[in-house]
Amino acid sequence: MAKGVTPKSTDYNKWYTDVISKSQMADYGPVKGTMVIRPYGYGIWENVRDAFDSRFKATGHTNAYFPLFIPKSFLSKEAEHVEGFAKECAVVTHTRLKATEDGKAVVVDPASKLEEEIIVRPTSETIIWSMYKKWINSYRDLPLLINQWANVVRWEMRTRLFIRTSEFLWQEGHTAHSTKKEAIEETLKMLEVYREVAEDVLAIPVLTGLKSESEKFAGAVDTYCIEAMMGDKKALQAGTSHYLGQNFAKAFDVKYQDENNKEEYVYATSWGVSTRLIGAIIMAHGDDKGLRLPPAIAPIQVVVIPITRSDEDGEMVKSYLDPLIKSLKQNGIRVHIDDRKKMSPGFKFNEWEMKGVPIRLEVGPRDMKQHSVFLARRDTSEKFGVEIAGASSKIIDLLDEIQNNLFDQALAFREDNTFSVSSYDEFKSIVEKGGFIRCGWDGDAKTEEAVKAETKATIRVIPFDEKPEGLACIYSGKPAKHEVIFSKAY
Amino acid sequence: MAKGVTPKSTDYNKWYTDVISKSQMADYGPVKGTMVIRPYGYGIWENVRDAFDSRFKATGHTNAYFPLFIPKSFLSKEAEHVEGFAKECAVVTHTRLKATEDGKAVVVDPASKLEEEIIVRPTSETIIWSMYKKWINSYRDLPLLINQWANVVRWEMRTRLFIRTSEFLWQEGHTAHSTKKEAIEETLKMLEVYREVAEDVLAIPVLTGLKSESEKFAGAVDTYCIEAMMGDKKALQAGTSHYLGQNFAKAFDVKYQDENNKEEYVYATSWGVSTRLIGAIIMAHGDDKGLRLPPAIAPIQVVVIPITRSDEDGEMVKSYLDPLIKSLKQNGIRVHIDDRKKMSPGFKFNEWEMKGVPIRLEVGPRDMKQHSVFLARRDTSEKFGVEIAGASSKIIDLLDEIQNNLFDQALAFREDNTFSVSSYDEFKSIVEKGGFIRCGWDGDAKTEEAVKAETKATIRVIPFDEKPEGLACIYSGKPAKHEVIFSKAY
Repeated sequence: MAKGVTPKSTDYNKWYTDVISKSQMADYGPVKGTMVIRPYGYGIWENVRDAFDSRFKATGHTNAYFPLFIPKSFLSKEAEHVEGFAKECAVVTHTRLKATEDGKAVVVDPASKLEEEIIVRPTSETIIWSMYKKWINSYRDLPLLINQWANVVRWEMRTRLFIRTSEFLWQEGHTAHSTKKEAIEETLKMLEVYREVAEDVLAIPVLTGLKSESEKFAGAVDTYCIEAMMGDKKALQAGTSHYLGQNFAKAFDVKYQDENNKEEYVYATSWGVSTRLIGAIIMAHGDDKGLRLPPAIAPIQVVVIPITRSDEDGEMVKSYLDPLIKSLKQNGIRVHIDDRKKMSPGFKFNEWEMKGVPIRLEVGPRDMKQHSVFLARRDTSEKFGVEIAGASSKIIDLLDEIQNNLFDQALAFREDNTFSVSSYDEFKSIVEKGGFIRCGWDGDAKTEEAVKAETKATIRVIPFDEKPEGLACIYSGKPAKHEVIFSKAY
Repeated sequence: MAKGVTPKSTDYNKWYTDVISKSQMADYGPVKGTMVIRPYGYGIWENVRDAFDSRFKATGHTNAYFPLFIPKSFLSKEAEHVEGFAKECAVVTHTRLKATEDGKAVVVDPASKLEEEIIVRPTSETIIWSMYKKWINSYRDLPLLINQWANVVRWEMRTRLFIRTSEFLWQEGHTAHSTKKEAIEETLKMLEVYREVAEDVLAIPVLTGLKSESEKFAGAVDTYCIEAMMGDKKALQAGTSHYLGQNFAKAFDVKYQDENNKEEYVYATSWGVSTRLIGAIIMAHGDDKGLRLPPAIAPIQVVVIPITRSDEDGEMVKSYLDPLIKSLKQNGIRVHIDDRKKMSPGFKFNEWEMKGVPIRLEVGPRDMKQHSVFLARRDTSEKFGVEIAGASSKIIDLLDEIQNNLFDQALAFREDNTFSVSSYDEFKSIVEKGGFIRCGWDGDAKTEEAVKAETKATIRVIPFDEKPEGLACIYSGKPAKHEVIFSKAY
């Protein structure tokens, strides 16, 4: 733990995995591509999850749980959906093991072969719409606003902890509406919830807008997204909200009777964010000392390190700090006291810096004499003493300040690395060195494909605030249909 | 919804499934044996889960997440474990689908066959201990107190919603300790957490004690349990806490170095409760009108039904109730106002009774004239008016009273149906009509087996408060080694 991480500038990928491993956030599991989320990483996920969950509930959604297993036949119902999504997935074919004759190993019992293979859900549209067919009959059953928190599986060859693993945790909202207008409003409402949590809770600035046809979710009419810049200037799709039109309603024959007894297919949305957001937090805020966590989601917001030479010192520091710690806890601040005996203060400092705790509070005999405590900010590395009398409210304010500062730093970084370009050559040189490029696009999928083939940059988002008027396409030179953001991406 | 359920006395199993279906708690999924937990059922589960989760955290545990997929080879490591547990499970053999030539269906791509088959976790001991091997080195790493909330899969032939489904949701705690003493203390501490939540939150009285050898978890040294009586006088195992000794530590070679640099295998526990508890709530408290939910876990604790003839009435009732509802919400009471227009009050009464809402609050113009509201208790069916001025605190007290009354009713039912017997003939006649039998057992597994074969009753628990002294075995007549509870069980 005391040893540092590979510097970002030396090897960004190595830095990323070093931070995860040394902060004890996650580990690879024994089956290739699977991930173990360790308690520290899971504590962050719980806070992220709760931030979303309370907002889903406040906007009228309820949680439910749908099965892990999907009949293979369901994936034939929405052809485009399968083509884009369900190809690489885990297939269950048998349901029993038996011991070998020597009793030393187990083998799959061939007699337990299933008639129809079962798919481990890569996403739940098909199974959920097979249930909605049973539940939706009349306009009185609409809107149906359901979310689920679940694990899903997509067989990935090139994995990366949190960002791309075979199994991951996520939430998927699936709603049904009587009108197109209402479904589109829902799609945008949930995108706004995503933006709010990303920016106000995770302190990650995001661009919002539409995906191009080639980047959208297979089976959606329109895919909206929040798109963030990581510390290596690459883009990360941090959440998507899909307007599905009547695609799944038609595939699963889900109609409702309106007030005049007329039958119509319902309109649908789906939207999801995942544990990938933890990867985004690491890459948006981390530095060469490790994680830097926004206070809103830090499992520990303030770590207290008593600097003591004897047990007696320890007791004195404890009673000195007691009222402050009580006050912080009463204000809902997550405080942890690190009074482990066999580790030096320096070791502890490094460990908690690695783990990204926003504020470190040190107290030793000298601070006590001065009626003060010593604070260190993880975001700026500033260190200063404050009087213990007013320390509680100082710390509460400081946490807010750190939250805002992390956002401001990430925003400044994105702005510093977002470019306008006047030629395709310039475009290529910027893609090479990294960053977002805001430029015109002629709206042709072939242009997009050509740029991707030549530079690996893709259209990350057609931002809501696009201004295509007067722009030319960076590749074809034709009049731009859209102003878009190009970048390499995770 | 307005139509009732099959009476318990007519057909208990039909009553059970009727209640689940009509209260919209759950549904079968498309793959045989899988379950969809609908929003109302999931809302109950969220409250149950939170009651446990806060207590796990208060006792020093943290949550983590381990992969769904286990290499088949892991299940050979703990032979007894496999024999008892992992035989009926879902086996993943392939990782890709492809479209048929006509593009109209999908088939499994034979080229994607895995070298080693993967098992969908039936429980996570093996995968967790494969990680503990990496994480545990020294006494400083102990105790390791981890819990996970997850889905698990056991291929079940005879399924029953909530009680036995192929996939279910649960929590599994897995802890590692440096001493046997500490591990046993942990096992019992978590059993006590289970007892507390079952009795104080779910209002279900439980017997606590040890399982017999034949009923214990394969791979455990000792299995402790909480055991409840359902409305049909059958037993339900509501939670188990296992002392695992060094079994998994040895299977996965997990040793720690003590303070004197001596290596030893660690000691382990595991403990779990599942969505089966929702089945227990239904069967412990439900009646012929449907669910009866303990207030502590009811998604809606008070349902408000305005009795109005016009929109104008509606507005008046609304402003009349506003301060009361505000006060209830401020006190953390979960209130729902059912102001749906096209349904009669009678229809709504039936629906909310079916859904087990503890208190119904009705208000019409007459109640307003009398400055009162009208309350109906779901547990006793009592109905009475109370002055609106003091209604908030009355309701809060009443919720406590209902919580206690449901527990008392269930306890009285269990006591009324727990019997001592003086002969095996009497034993058989009581097993036939249902109930718990408290009697002597000679401690021989063959006796247990014979009784099970003849009567279908099994030893549910060797209760902590057993008094075997002077008792004879109900079957063999030999001196009793234990006083035990026999019953038929789910």
